[in-house]
Amino acid sequence: MDKVYLDDLAPGQVFTSQARVVVETDAIKRFAGEFDPQPWHLNETVARSTFFKELVASGWHTTALTMQLIIQTLPLSEGIIGRGVDELRWPRPVRPGDTLRLHCEIIDVQESKVRPSQGTVRVRMTTLNQDDQPVQTMIAQLLAFRRSGEAT
Amino acid sequence: MDKVYLDDLAPGQVFTSQARVVVETDAIKRFAGEFDPQPWHLNETVARSTFFKELVASGWHTTALTMQLIIQTLPLSEGIIGRGVDELRWPRPVRPGDTLRLHCEIIDVQESKVRPSQGTVRVRMTTLNQDDQPVQTMIAQLLAFRRSGEAT
Repeated sequence: MDKVYLDDLAPGQVFTSQARVVVETDAIKRFAGEFDPQPWHLNETVARSTFFKELVASGWHTTALTMQLIIQTLPLSEGIIGRGVDELRWPRPVRPGDTLRLHCEIIDVQESKVRPSQGTVRVRMTTLNQDDQPVQTMIAQLLAFRRSGEAT
Repeated sequence: MDKVYLDDLAPGQVFTSQARVVVETDAIKRFAGEFDPQPWHLNETVARSTFFKELVASGWHTTALTMQLIIQTLPLSEGIIGRGVDELRWPRPVRPGDTLRLHCEIIDVQESKVRPSQGTVRVRMTTLNQDDQPVQTMIAQLLAFRRSGEAT
């Protein structure tokens, strides 16, 4: 992928992942065991008697897997440096065996008034499953650099 | 911890973690290797010539570690079920050896109009390092249940 600079970005541009991530049952349980040890992320049988009624991935596992996809989708010149995230939602669960991909749309590009070599790009990021249903949506604020003024 | 129901929650209430999480260098690199393989999360030497100038944890690693603290801090009756997150920010980096703790403040409690047994609680969650500096802030929307109408 060619590197993309602040100068190249404009609202409406779309980046979609070539990459796919398959969410394995073992990975769901391993992530949950370390970070989110609640029964609906750990054990199929116990999960049946919970709110979710089945084993589902932690929302924070979905964000982490989405980060993996972002890096492969959005070729910002200096990498993916997040300032923050707004409106993070998980409209439906991620289930064992789901295959995830990413759709990114640039919604806003702001040059920094203080540091002219930098700016902030707001990107609507939608993580989709194999049935093209959104499992996660968020608006990420990313740091981007001018072609003439790289970070390093 | 006694279980907490929707009925028990009100704006202004504070929950702070007894638990602490130490962020080890190996854990930073392991998480990054799987989900966020960028040089400033993987290698101390290479990190020096990047925007961050040092090895730092992935923001998504910080959210995952924060989830670990949330479970130990907020004793909601049916567990921590997130509807979404707003205003997620990482005001300063998490560095190897940092010790994290969590401060939660209830900012809003809304009963569901559709399902009277449920409601949504908005919680301002601040993840602090050993110097009491915020390394992450967010407003989480969590599902909560009435004492008389549990989920299961």
